[in-house]
Amino acid sequence: MATPSSQIVPPLKDELDIVIPTIRNLDFLEMWRPFFEPYHLIIVQDGDPSRTVRVPDGFDYELYNRNDVNNILGPKASCISFKDSACRCFGFLVSKKKYIYTIDDDCFVAKDPSGKEINALSQHIRNLLTPSTPLFFNTLYDPYREGADFVRGYPFSFREGVPTAISHGLWLNIPDYDAPTQLVKPLERNTRYVDAVLTIPKGTLFPMCGMNLGFNRELIGPAMYFGLMGDGQPIGRYDDMWAGWCCKVICDHLGLGVKTGLPYIWHSKASNPFVNLKKEYKGIYWQEELIPFFQSVVLPKECTTVQKCYLELSKLVNEKLAHVDPYFQKLADAMVTWIDAWDELNPTQEAQSTTNVKSIKEPSSNLK
Amino acid sequence: MATPSSQIVPPLKDELDIVIPTIRNLDFLEMWRPFFEPYHLIIVQDGDPSRTVRVPDGFDYELYNRNDVNNILGPKASCISFKDSACRCFGFLVSKKKYIYTIDDDCFVAKDPSGKEINALSQHIRNLLTPSTPLFFNTLYDPYREGADFVRGYPFSFREGVPTAISHGLWLNIPDYDAPTQLVKPLERNTRYVDAVLTIPKGTLFPMCGMNLGFNRELIGPAMYFGLMGDGQPIGRYDDMWAGWCCKVICDHLGLGVKTGLPYIWHSKASNPFVNLKKEYKGIYWQEELIPFFQSVVLPKECTTVQKCYLELSKLVNEKLAHVDPYFQKLADAMVTWIDAWDELNPTQEAQSTTNVKSIKEPSSNLK
Repeated sequence: MATPSSQIVPPLKDELDIVIPTIRNLDFLEMWRPFFEPYHLIIVQDGDPSRTVRVPDGFDYELYNRNDVNNILGPKASCISFKDSACRCFGFLVSKKKYIYTIDDDCFVAKDPSGKEINALSQHIRNLLTPSTPLFFNTLYDPYREGADFVRGYPFSFREGVPTAISHGLWLNIPDYDAPTQLVKPLERNTRYVDAVLTIPKGTLFPMCGMNLGFNRELIGPAMYFGLMGDGQPIGRYDDMWAGWCCKVICDHLGLGVKTGLPYIWHSKASNPFVNLKKEYKGIYWQEELIPFFQSVVLPKECTTVQKCYLELSKLVNEKLAHVDPYFQKLADAMVTWIDAWDELNPTQEAQSTTNVKSIKEPSSNLK
Repeated sequence: MATPSSQIVPPLKDELDIVIPTIRNLDFLEMWRPFFEPYHLIIVQDGDPSRTVRVPDGFDYELYNRNDVNNILGPKASCISFKDSACRCFGFLVSKKKYIYTIDDDCFVAKDPSGKEINALSQHIRNLLTPSTPLFFNTLYDPYREGADFVRGYPFSFREGVPTAISHGLWLNIPDYDAPTQLVKPLERNTRYVDAVLTIPKGTLFPMCGMNLGFNRELIGPAMYFGLMGDGQPIGRYDDMWAGWCCKVICDHLGLGVKTGLPYIWHSKASNPFVNLKKEYKGIYWQEELIPFFQSVVLPKECTTVQKCYLELSKLVNEKLAHVDPYFQKLADAMVTWIDAWDELNPTQEAQSTTNVKSIKEPSSNLK
């Protein structure tokens, strides 16, 4: 009789890329080695392209610096931020995989209350491979989890759920606070391990943090644009927020789910609150108009793909937010450029068979 | 120098009633003695009024049986269910306090992961005395809790929150499942302690369980009607669900908050799934029409009080749900009767000063 192999194949090994934006050597990967080594990494090097970023031995990766971004995208490179972790979305663009996990290079492996190291990636995969329940709240949280289910009074017709597009993970130690809160509570640490994953209900916006984030690139990829931030732009630190608002509105429209909660990573280092304040202050008052805007967005039913939704959203941004600041006209244009770039680098099956697509990926370095 | 008194006054001691529906001796109170003894209890005895319900010594309580309900409400007693825990709402009606905590008599004190006994009542009070955040999701859960705050990207104008009307607590051990799930998973137990309280976002419905529930009677009391269930009615076990759907729609309209999560109680005893199935089966298919109904309810802006909202809702139930079953016409009428009874027993300050209100509370027994 055949015995089953004891070798465990890492889940989604050939269907998931790990995207890391960085300006430094990636020594933090040592800690993640047991969990990340089987996967392919896409490293987006921010800032000075002449600097060399060291990647620990044994990882399978491709690395892109600003020169690569410019070479690959040509004039469309203008939609990719410079000197800001928003550049990570370039990695989403060039990936050819179905799933993405993205993590910041100051995030380490956290431990659960029993002291066990948390495999964040495997929890994100679990979140992404099980449905979401945005239409009705389940008071015992994720009903698909071992030991849980839908509670009394949960409509049976909703129990199949909807496909999950996004898995938003959390952070122990340094919480993801804005500059004013950092300044007021410099010593606050997140020590509470909340053992739950939950779906953010339909119609509700949330602050999406890009530090520890998984998503289904096929379902929502074209909306995972991190905007224009950093060098030459009037704001920073709103890249992931922008992506989160756009994605949530589009997920709600297309019937896709967004989960938040587990897994935790260990966020090691608080960024400088004074520097952050300078980056954020415009966002802090702009968002008072942005949130009502996103809360009131209604996408027409003709918008049946993420691309169509995103282009419609860019039109609405141009129409309804230009009065807030001319920046939003520039951003609306960049949203269109992003979709152009996405479609160029990710031609549909149909387009691929009729067009002679040239090879566009020429990374600086690829160990594989 | 004066030293502060070491005596701790129980919070809201004179502003909160504990309401318990029961058909048996209340020995379960022994376990709750350290937490409940300072408070006043309202016991609603269900079923045969000639039975004597024993209450452990030392508790301050009033007890109402069916004869009392009939004497106090006269013909309006028809809105109070018989042979069903839905009769608990009679206790909400006769209370004169600002806050209510209601608990089932098969619920015991649970322990937190450190082994400490959980004072469920004090956690409900904390939930009710801090604001809710229904307009935007906070990924670190309750932002008013020690060690937590609003995360980056949370609009500052939303950070004051809204008044909390309802605190929905959870259950360890026996989960609150419907009959089909009980039948399929007879051995499933809830062992997961999720250390979180969160606001159910505006526009999202949830299955409210009456087992372990706190609320602000002044803010939402008149909507806490548990409907027509049990003896002579075609369904049971939808009493708390009905109240929850009505309350949530009204809270959303009036800008009030609903929280769920902590505290846990220990739910000791699973009810009989076969009996439950008989009570529930109509509700299970009716709710497929009820939920879309409640999801689409829009209350006119003239509805500025809970009473006005509730009467409007009763009209909509009559108009839009009568086709589901004639029961909903009866229920709509009972909703109106309930509001009449509420207003009679709870005259406003204004009404009190102009009307000669007779004493209407004549409980069977009152130890005080």
